[in-house]
Amino acid sequence: MWAGAGLGGLLSDEAWVAAMLQVEVALARVQARLGVIPPPAAEVIARVAASARLDVADIARRARGAANPVVPFVQELTRAVAEADPDAAEYVHRGSTSQDILDSASMLLTARVLTRIEGDLARVADALATLAREHRATPMAGRTLTQHATPITFGLKAAGWLALVLDAVDRVRQVRASLPAQLGGAAGTLAAYEEYARSAGITGTPGGPGHGVDLLAGFSAELGLREPEAPWHAQRTPLADIGWALVVVTGALGKLAVDVLGMSRTEVAEVVEPAAQGRGVSSAMPQKRNPVLATVIVAAARQVPGYALMLGQSLLAEDERSAGGWQSEWQPLREALRLAAGAAGNAVELTEGLTVFPEHLSRNLAITGGTIVSERLNVALAPQLGKVVAKQLLARISLEAASGGGSFDDLLAAAPELAGSFSEDRAIHDLLDPSNYLGAAEDVVARVLRRHYASYGQEDR
Amino acid sequence: MWAGAGLGGLLSDEAWVAAMLQVEVALARVQARLGVIPPPAAEVIARVAASARLDVADIARRARGAANPVVPFVQELTRAVAEADPDAAEYVHRGSTSQDILDSASMLLTARVLTRIEGDLARVADALATLAREHRATPMAGRTLTQHATPITFGLKAAGWLALVLDAVDRVRQVRASLPAQLGGAAGTLAAYEEYARSAGITGTPGGPGHGVDLLAGFSAELGLREPEAPWHAQRTPLADIGWALVVVTGALGKLAVDVLGMSRTEVAEVVEPAAQGRGVSSAMPQKRNPVLATVIVAAARQVPGYALMLGQSLLAEDERSAGGWQSEWQPLREALRLAAGAAGNAVELTEGLTVFPEHLSRNLAITGGTIVSERLNVALAPQLGKVVAKQLLARISLEAASGGGSFDDLLAAAPELAGSFSEDRAIHDLLDPSNYLGAAEDVVARVLRRHYASYGQEDR
Amino acid sequence: MWAGAGLGGLLSDEAWVAAMLQVEVALARVQARLGVIPPPAAEVIARVAASARLDVADIARRARGAANPVVPFVQELTRAVAEADPDAAEYVHRGSTSQDILDSASMLLTARVLTRIEGDLARVADALATLAREHRATPMAGRTLTQHATPITFGLKAAGWLALVLDAVDRVRQVRASLPAQLGGAAGTLAAYEEYARSAGITGTPGGPGHGVDLLAGFSAELGLREPEAPWHAQRTPLADIGWALVVVTGALGKLAVDVLGMSRTEVAEVVEPAAQGRGVSSAMPQKRNPVLATVIVAAARQVPGYALMLGQSLLAEDERSAGGWQSEWQPLREALRLAAGAAGNAVELTEGLTVFPEHLSRNLAITGGTIVSERLNVALAPQLGKVVAKQLLARISLEAASGGGSFDDLLAAAPELAGSFSEDRAIHDLLDPSNYLGAAEDVVARVLRRHYASYGQEDR
Amino acid sequence: MWAGAGLGGLLSDEAWVAAMLQVEVALARVQARLGVIPPPAAEVIARVAASARLDVADIARRARGAANPVVPFVQELTRAVAEADPDAAEYVHRGSTSQDILDSASMLLTARVLTRIEGDLARVADALATLAREHRATPMAGRTLTQHATPITFGLKAAGWLALVLDAVDRVRQVRASLPAQLGGAAGTLAAYEEYARSAGITGTPGGPGHGVDLLAGFSAELGLREPEAPWHAQRTPLADIGWALVVVTGALGKLAVDVLGMSRTEVAEVVEPAAQGRGVSSAMPQKRNPVLATVIVAAARQVPGYALMLGQSLLAEDERSAGGWQSEWQPLREALRLAAGAAGNAVELTEGLTVFPEHLSRNLAITGGTIVSERLNVALAPQLGKVVAKQLLARISLEAASGGGSFDDLLAAAPELAGSFSEDRAIHDLLDPSNYLGAAEDVVARVLRRHYASYGQEDR
Repeated sequence: MWAGAGLGGLLSDEAWVAAMLQVEVALARVQARLGVIPPPAAEVIARVAASARLDVADIARRARGAANPVVPFVQELTRAVAEADPDAAEYVHRGSTSQDILDSASMLLTARVLTRIEGDLARVADALATLAREHRATPMAGRTLTQHATPITFGLKAAGWLALVLDAVDRVRQVRASLPAQLGGAAGTLAAYEEYARSAGITGTPGGPGHGVDLLAGFSAELGLREPEAPWHAQRTPLADIGWALVVVTGALGKLAVDVLGMSRTEVAEVVEPAAQGRGVSSAMPQKRNPVLATVIVAAARQVPGYALMLGQSLLAEDERSAGGWQSEWQPLREALRLAAGAAGNAVELTEGLTVFPEHLSRNLAITGGTIVSERLNVALAPQLGKVVAKQLLARISLEAASGGGSFDDLLAAAPELAGSFSEDRAIHDLLDPSNYLGAAEDVVARVLRRHYASYGQEDR
Repeated sequence: MWAGAGLGGLLSDEAWVAAMLQVEVALARVQARLGVIPPPAAEVIARVAASARLDVADIARRARGAANPVVPFVQELTRAVAEADPDAAEYVHRGSTSQDILDSASMLLTARVLTRIEGDLARVADALATLAREHRATPMAGRTLTQHATPITFGLKAAGWLALVLDAVDRVRQVRASLPAQLGGAAGTLAAYEEYARSAGITGTPGGPGHGVDLLAGFSAELGLREPEAPWHAQRTPLADIGWALVVVTGALGKLAVDVLGMSRTEVAEVVEPAAQGRGVSSAMPQKRNPVLATVIVAAARQVPGYALMLGQSLLAEDERSAGGWQSEWQPLREALRLAAGAAGNAVELTEGLTVFPEHLSRNLAITGGTIVSERLNVALAPQLGKVVAKQLLARISLEAASGGGSFDDLLAAAPELAGSFSEDRAIHDLLDPSNYLGAAEDVVARVLRRHYASYGQEDR
Repeated sequence: MWAGAGLGGLLSDEAWVAAMLQVEVALARVQARLGVIPPPAAEVIARVAASARLDVADIARRARGAANPVVPFVQELTRAVAEADPDAAEYVHRGSTSQDILDSASMLLTARVLTRIEGDLARVADALATLAREHRATPMAGRTLTQHATPITFGLKAAGWLALVLDAVDRVRQVRASLPAQLGGAAGTLAAYEEYARSAGITGTPGGPGHGVDLLAGFSAELGLREPEAPWHAQRTPLADIGWALVVVTGALGKLAVDVLGMSRTEVAEVVEPAAQGRGVSSAMPQKRNPVLATVIVAAARQVPGYALMLGQSLLAEDERSAGGWQSEWQPLREALRLAAGAAGNAVELTEGLTVFPEHLSRNLAITGGTIVSERLNVALAPQLGKVVAKQLLARISLEAASGGGSFDDLLAAAPELAGSFSEDRAIHDLLDPSNYLGAAEDVVARVLRRHYASYGQEDR
Repeated sequence: MWAGAGLGGLLSDEAWVAAMLQVEVALARVQARLGVIPPPAAEVIARVAASARLDVADIARRARGAANPVVPFVQELTRAVAEADPDAAEYVHRGSTSQDILDSASMLLTARVLTRIEGDLARVADALATLAREHRATPMAGRTLTQHATPITFGLKAAGWLALVLDAVDRVRQVRASLPAQLGGAAGTLAAYEEYARSAGITGTPGGPGHGVDLLAGFSAELGLREPEAPWHAQRTPLADIGWALVVVTGALGKLAVDVLGMSRTEVAEVVEPAAQGRGVSSAMPQKRNPVLATVIVAAARQVPGYALMLGQSLLAEDERSAGGWQSEWQPLREALRLAAGAAGNAVELTEGLTVFPEHLSRNLAITGGTIVSERLNVALAPQLGKVVAKQLLARISLEAASGGGSFDDLLAAAPELAGSFSEDRAIHDLLDPSNYLGAAEDVVARVLRRHYASYGQEDR
């Protein structure tokens, strides 16, 4: 009911039918160009397709009979063309099998959704780059296995999100460019196309006009899809690739969203999602402002790997067309695309409007009273005490402080093992200041930003 | 576009809204009965719900704001009730959280779909019982790892399908009966219900009227769902259970379908799907009669485990309501129900109309010239030659026969090791007749039929 | 390397071989009892099996040749028996197919692991029942979508964990009792068993001794497994059922662990895992005390649904034995059992030693300054202002308080819309006290505890 | 027990420990080179690592305490180094977190396994190229939805398998080259490395020696892994990528294996797996020669998508290190690598030794008596009868022939609608010959072979 609302019909039933019409038109036009069908027939088909109002619900109902929607679709299209010009109707869907039409249409829609996702990811990446740059030196608590670990910067966190988004962009671009057209005829030999060419008087020698593989080239170009080496009715790598790219998209955004959820917790309160009329409202609790953008993104990220699994299993297709394999791709492909596009759209809003509270970052960073830099003390004390002894000592003092036995710095100062350890110029106070222990955080941020600028052809800033 | 066509809107967006309306009405009625809200208000709510025409698409669009559709749904319902009676509008959705409504509505729809599936499975089981009984002694080739193994009967194969369908029926019944209503209020304490009761002047002692758990009891009864011990906003066992039952349903039917596909292969041709106008048609090949019912069932069976995985992961829900977990259940639940119901419907048609060709069963059984009973020869020869030697000998002769070195029986007769092995009363011919080597096939069929009759309260035949 | 360490070899390669030996011995004993093989031979087989030291690594290597380990295993066993008594060797594995042995052995091991899991879950349930009872009235913040929602009690949270564990116990018990023995012979007709019986002079009429299904009954009893109606070589419901039960086990424990992780966060600090020598140590940070028990449980809970998916897909098995389906069950079964048992063991330690900090529960409950009960205020104010207006007002004041505009109660007191709303006997102060707004939390806890006591035959306390 | 036997310990527990040792040595060497630790200490560490015999089982046991094996591993290594040189022990694991070591070791092992897989796939591709070339014009039945569709060639089928293997090779190469080293220290800032550098007197300016990111560069080079822009403790794209590549590997090989299984069916008998001592043996049936190589490959292909799902879910990692996410990668990664490598090894044997029976291909192609080319007749008759009428006529005659009403060609010749349709020079006989209707099969084969040669830098043949 609610998934993918806002996708503007990019994946609606009507969009599928429109894409199938586009495929049939491309086929007719290329056949006309190669002299296999009369050019006027192709134009009639194109004209009818442009204005045809096919009954989508009826096609869906009748799809059950053939276990695919193309059979009734072609019947309807043929009928519509025949109404305009009975002769032209003979040239509809010539030489094709259902899978040629549906696979090519799927790739067209996938290409469109990936383009949209890429556009949204560009905005997300820009927003994250800005956050990373602005907060490259804003200290906050780094957390591992839920516990404060060592200090990081909020910019480093944002750079980590950005790195994932750039990974996703790379994979989306790669898969988008690899999407192949599909044309093989009944069992992948393109034999009917050649037979029609012959019956049209074209005695094509291999490589000459009328030959099956020429059609494949022209058809792919017409659709703006990659020309495959061979029909891929039962070679389903494209589906596995799409699933993978979408896993990386929703996984990248899901990591970001999971962190936003963690940082939004009432006790943590380091970030808050952008406000909007009615957003984050609860049906019961007046005070609630739920992190709904992150929630929706996480929901998508929890589902898409399941869909990618279904798509990856498509490779296990028997014969020249699978009975059950091919048919189990359609809904997972659609849902995975919808969820990923939905997640990307939500991520734009989330990242462009995310509010960060540096004072809460500081407050949280301070709550352990300095134990968050005990690693640093370990390094400082190792030469004197040995690495292992120093670590045991610090573990003991940390635990004592956590158990209410005193503040970490007082306990350190009082520890007899450490008498004389801290010289004037390297005072405990300095050592315990988390903002003095940020390591290469800024350099790492800069490296990720460089990748970002390179990825978008921008100049380094 | 094409999945679940024919489900008659059982899972449409409109069906979801209708179920949510039913839940709100149930809540109001029980609250009225307990004296917490005025009975006339409950009746207004019920009346408006019965005739309300909520804008489903609009609710879907606005669902994004709250990351759930209940918030805009309640706004619309409240608006519609207010038009009828402004006072009654105060009593809509009283004390509830969005999840109470959506979870309860999900369970209602699930119950309906499971009931429908159970009905279809009953027809499938009947059809299979008939096949099993009629063909309990019809010999055919048993196949393991794709190779002829030993003879079985077609009735045994049908009994195997039936056993799985009975497994599915058991699980559907169990889960159907276990589906709980959901009512907990904002965080599972039912506190707002009690607060409203108190403000209505009901100073309920625990266990007395107005107390939260009373409401839970009445509400569950009103909806015909199980009364849970506790609200289960973040205890998602029901989802895992539903997923499991649907895996067994589509897996059971999928096994049947996979076998039908294998037996339908052009070279095997042991069964054929029921014919129907336009069914199994190819868009390219005039001669094709594709096993489309089995294809659609297999397609469902390949997807449902992925959905069950998503539903099973729901258990990993943090806090009193998950951010991302709950929201990732809705679409998988709907799709899994739709696929399972679609598979069950197709299986009715498939099993009630399946044609078996006993003459092709016989033909295929004979094609190995008797090597299909070499296990039996092994038993017969073991006392004389020893188990291991007998097996090696038979392996050698089988291979020779398969390689065109002569017929299996001739080679056996000629083998010097076997001179004098076959007495008059136990001739090679008898030993090699596959229909003499069916073991307990009929008994096993009878055992499965007994389970079937018991499952449906029928008398054993 | 590290998974399932501590399972004491319950699922080691050696345990598999031992279980296969147990199955072969059971088969021989039952055949001896039925007069099909000489009793002394059965005893030799049992004696050799008891002392045999089969080379597990060698069997694994040779397993590749037959795509299953039973073929080399039987060769080794036969060889060992032959060394003790060449005649007895003839009676090893009589009439069986590899799958009979491996499936039965799998069920034996599964039964053992489920029994162990059930034992661990009983301890977990006891520990949680204690927590639920003791803290049934200890207030804490309820959280939904990461935000403070309304107050709950820690006992209610523990009761939620307990309810899930009881769900898991129910499913483990159900599946444990349903595990079937497997015996069908080459293609499920038990034909070779009958042939051997005949060659031993037993001219069994159906139902009489020597008949296949008698063997099935005795064999199942001998192994302590359920007697199935029919061999289930290609009817894999038991695998789907096991997968489901393990999903519920790790999901139930995973929910608990996810909550422990959330409550362990440095900023939240409401619970801490039990300490132990070396536990939770970091290789880098001296202060760290990581919640490792919960981490390991979550890791298991993230994997098991994937294994259950693989097991659920087993149902899609073609013919009388699948080529690739059966073989893809073994490792997922083993890993899923190992992970679930590991999770259960860790959960015992986690729940029996969990420390709760009531003062931190209180501290966190207070941090919103009362907005956590704004739902209650909504109820209180609705009669006067109307539900919708009251909610808008409270939303505005909550936001103002959260933005630093003053304390929630001061802002409430100052709101002109509320002038005169709070009478003496129902002061703001009381209304805002979270511990006054716990609804039916204690009743719900009591209901879950009743289920717990009933599940374990304990008296209600 | 049996998976991945024959992988020569590539993924054994010992291999993991050896890889972790290699990582610690690389770290020490690079630190020595940068002047952060004394070069002799690095050499001691390297020497001890080369000869250390760590107790793997003990490390596994103790791994539970820290929820990772690196903590006890480092303790053991430190102890071993201390025995050789107490001073050197101070420099073990300096500045690192457990995840640095384990992730880097994982990438090393993954790289090795991918290299091995790539080598095996090269042999598979070569074998398939040979089959495709030799049989480019060998006609056989093309099958869709289990039914004979139109003729293809066996070379086209082999080319389809080859195309998938080339897809797999591309993805394996891409992922292999992208595997990153991991080095970030406790929370990804490399702060401890810098602190140690400072305490060694190196006052590195950013970009100068002693700076964290320099270490990252040297360390990656030392291990032969890609230098990442940033530590990726919680950015798990590499895992998703590995999972995807392995899905394509086992999916590609699985498609091949599924087809081999189908073509091996007793009734079809078009191919047979290479024979080997003991291979394909049944424990019950002497005549059996099971397609075990294909079976094992399919078993792998059914599991790997489940593992890839688990790996893809890794992206959903919270904070700077996930509690439960990271830990759920290890076993899936290992199993997926093992299964893919096992599948590749089996595929080498399968494809290099596959026997094709052209006479059986011909026999099966003929069994429909010509209806397999009814598509062609449709084309031939369309100009005269119209596309739709021709198709209906041919469907009717096909069905009549299939139902035993006569041979397809006789029925065609007798059809009154077709009187005079077949001229002398275009006789029915020619039209019905399947080997005259192979379309562009040879061209498609040539295109795939060209891709193959290009992929391996071979000259086109």
